[in-house]
Amino acid sequence: MLVTKYPSSKMRLLAIDPALRKSGFAILEKEGRKIRALAHGVIRNHTELSLTQCLLEIHRQTDQLIAQYLPECCAVESVIFVQNSRTAVTLGAARGSALLAAAQHGLSIYEYPPRRVKQAVVGRGAAQKAQVGFMVRALLGALAIGLTHLQMEDSIITRPSATRSL
Amino acid sequence: MLVTKYPSSKMRLLAIDPALRKSGFAILEKEGRKIRALAHGVIRNHTELSLTQCLLEIHRQTDQLIAQYLPECCAVESVIFVQNSRTAVTLGAARGSALLAAAQHGLSIYEYPPRRVKQAVVGRGAAQKAQVGFMVRALLGALAIGLTHLQMEDSIITRPSATRSL
Repeated sequence: MLVTKYPSSKMRLLAIDPALRKSGFAILEKEGRKIRALAHGVIRNHTELSLTQCLLEIHRQTDQLIAQYLPECCAVESVIFVQNSRTAVTLGAARGSALLAAAQHGLSIYEYPPRRVKQAVVGRGAAQKAQVGFMVRALLGALAIGLTHLQMEDSIITRPSATRSL
Repeated sequence: MLVTKYPSSKMRLLAIDPALRKSGFAILEKEGRKIRALAHGVIRNHTELSLTQCLLEIHRQTDQLIAQYLPECCAVESVIFVQNSRTAVTLGAARGSALLAAAQHGLSIYEYPPRRVKQAVVGRGAAQKAQVGFMVRALLGALAIGLTHLQMEDSIITRPSATRSL
């Protein structure tokens, strides 16, 4: 018998859009075709905090979110371009701290290219930034990433090629 | 009375040169002007391991090293240039996992630019790569970083400007 944390028709997801100072997060639940946002917000780190204090905080709060909401999987956006090495290394450290917490809880981790996150929200990949801004507006980046994953769940046949487990 | 883990004349350091597949590490101890390497090696991650499995392993092994040797501080090289964003983000995640373990143990973390690590080993910053290769040869990158920190300890007056706590 397959034992799951909650009925198998439900799926719970942590979507995260990590950055050193402001990491967006969303806990989404899907039941049939209905999607609910159970929680969403931002992990904020004040500018006085050192890099390592920020990493501690990102890890601690991600860990807490997972312990509280028990998601089965985690979705992040892949990083295509960052303006310079130092920024990319810092972003990587923030991202690594969040993913580490997810991995320590045994969550499956899925990564989606920015183009696909746009597609999931506005319906086509070539959308302009302004258009995404309009469509998403009040949604955090993390909500968009979460919606990407949940839309993928609908088209399960295309999933293996469309997503990539980190 | 100031209570320390071991006599205050001794100083113990974890030096780490993180990368996703091969992270060099060294535990160095300094007593007076004498430096001993208590341990050094490489945290290896097989190519079959996913990014998050690698992060788990880097964090777990760094945590174990600190628990075993109880260093007071941690030294890393700063990252100046990485060829592309994706590589830099991955390197940042590996680096973040090691630094997170150090921060969770309350270690002070110091970062040294590559030029200073070269200087500590060959005596001048403009050394060619080949020269560093010759001088360091059997030393791991981590040993070089550790020596950098311990040489700084000698010139304590210059430390605040010469090093930077992350």
